[in-house]
Amino acid sequence: MAKMIVVYQQPRDPEAFDKHYFDVHVPLAKQLPGLQKYEMSEGAVASIAGGPQPYRVASLYFDDMDAIRTAFASEIGRACAVDRKQLAADEEVDIYLFDTRDL
Amino acid sequence: MAKMIVVYQQPRDPEAFDKHYFDVHVPLAKQLPGLQKYEMSEGAVASIAGGPQPYRVASLYFDDMDAIRTAFASEIGRACAVDRKQLAADEEVDIYLFDTRDL
Repeated sequence: MAKMIVVYQQPRDPEAFDKHYFDVHVPLAKQLPGLQKYEMSEGAVASIAGGPQPYRVASLYFDDMDAIRTAFASEIGRACAVDRKQLAADEEVDIYLFDTRDL
Repeated sequence: MAKMIVVYQQPRDPEAFDKHYFDVHVPLAKQLPGLQKYEMSEGAVASIAGGPQPYRVASLYFDDMDAIRTAFASEIGRACAVDRKQLAADEEVDIYLFDTRDL
């Protein structure tokens, strides 16, 4: 399994962020080819070490890293990337991509 | 479901980090009461927006936030927190805790 984890910092206008996120970004991202599961943090996100408290953390699951690359090379994937920049500039978000294994 | 996501920045000595992580930290953390699943990034972690490229990303799954609090209030949980600081000081790691829901 491979994951994309998206850590959104606190937006200036949380209500406007949520409206855009749930009305526009989620319906778009759910069309990503190969997307297996799409999870969102529910309620407050605690940060107990280095960084500030994020606003939301999204996890998108794919079969493997190739599937993620294929998804984001697609038309929907490119539209998601453009829309994400409307939600949060690069410096307002951390996006991590990686394969996973169970320990 | 609730998750703890641990984002480790690049260690000074990756080999020593891995030895400590897999020989000491994993066997300890797997004893956390209520731990449902423990995933580790496999291979390189890509960072495509704000932050630097992390070294490893761990995901620990529990039933809910109360289960996470119970786990880390236990003797094993306190030992895990102490051991994590041996692996990575607070400024070398981001640790996020949150409930999740499927979108």
